[in-house]
Amino acid sequence: MKVSARNQFKGTVSEVRPGSVYSEVLVRLKGGATLVAMITKESVASLAIAPGKEVIAMIKAPHVILVTDFGGYRISARNQLEGKVVQVKPGAINSEVDIELSGGEKVAATVTNESVESLGLRQGQTATAIFKAGSVILAVTE
Amino acid sequence: MKVSARNQFKGTVSEVRPGSVYSEVLVRLKGGATLVAMITKESVASLAIAPGKEVIAMIKAPHVILVTDFGGYRISARNQLEGKVVQVKPGAINSEVDIELSGGEKVAATVTNESVESLGLRQGQTATAIFKAGSVILAVTE
Amino acid sequence: MKVSARNQFKGTVSEVRPGSVYSEVLVRLKGGATLVAMITKESVASLAIAPGKEVIAMIKAPHVILVTDFGGYRISARNQLEGKVVQVKPGAINSEVDIELSGGEKVAATVTNESVESLGLRQGQTATAIFKAGSVILAVTE
Repeated sequence: MKVSARNQFKGTVSEVRPGSVYSEVLVRLKGGATLVAMITKESVASLAIAPGKEVIAMIKAPHVILVTDFGGYRISARNQLEGKVVQVKPGAINSEVDIELSGGEKVAATVTNESVESLGLRQGQTATAIFKAGSVILAVTE
Repeated sequence: MKVSARNQFKGTVSEVRPGSVYSEVLVRLKGGATLVAMITKESVASLAIAPGKEVIAMIKAPHVILVTDFGGYRISARNQLEGKVVQVKPGAINSEVDIELSGGEKVAATVTNESVESLGLRQGQTATAIFKAGSVILAVTE
Repeated sequence: MKVSARNQFKGTVSEVRPGSVYSEVLVRLKGGATLVAMITKESVASLAIAPGKEVIAMIKAPHVILVTDFGGYRISARNQLEGKVVQVKPGAINSEVDIELSGGEKVAATVTNESVESLGLRQGQTATAIFKAGSVILAVTE
């Protein structure tokens, strides 16, 4: 599959919690982390998404927020993956920042250059990649 | 109307499926394709969105993912519009890629330069523009 | 808290309307405006989000759409904040546009350079920053 989404994670569906129009789908990644995706009930049905199904979870880099210091705060986004900055690629306004998780997966985030400065983002630093369940798209075979 | 969203499609509401807080709104575009938008029930009521209503569906370019090869995969996002690449505008980190649908509408996607390379995006190539129903905003007159 | 989201607004929860998987959370900002956030029921419970709770509402700049002329249209997005352009920072493809609300808060939007031109965005101009409730993330202490 050739898809422009910078973040693509292989995993297995561990749970599906149906709502009225959206269902909450939990995906266990190879590296051990669990992602949460909000998928319409119709897509869950048409793609036969159910526990045990292998999926690829995709998130675009502009949807990812980075946190370097929670300062006592807790955040509502369901996906919060801690890792270490392995690369910062600067552009005119935005930079792409790559985080490596302990399980080995990499997460790319597009953040403004101002945030790179104010968060002191640089190689080796610990950072948490945060994104909403509504930002996750699932792909399945078969 | 002057709005910064790069993608603006005229269409007619064909169906509204209410949920507990979100309603699913189906919009038939002039060119024949159907889009799906997730709109809060409150907005559906306050904007009087109902079958037959003319609307403009808007999607920001950074919300659009491009696929050039599904490789046997199917994707959960409700909006999947196939077309041909008509332009690639490169920036420092991201490029804007314009796709023309068979119905004549154009879809703009912001993707990383790495994706432009790895997907081999260039004029004339077939690509599918993909975005979640939750990324669509509707505008109405009256 | 050090977070890369360009938009961070302090406010107080005024109402929580539960749905089946999402709850709608209304947040009154210091400057007087009210924001709407869609948060999963699970996060509302785990973060103890309830009326009176102090929160920080965060929205990434690429999620914000700017409108300079509604031309008789009304828009489905639940968050619509009018202000004046105070700065336009141009990049290769996108610009960051900062809007100052009457209550003093600033909203940053990432829009394409084409939109900056077609909307005539420049310092002093009135513009409305628009984003969906699903784009808002909440942070709480305690």
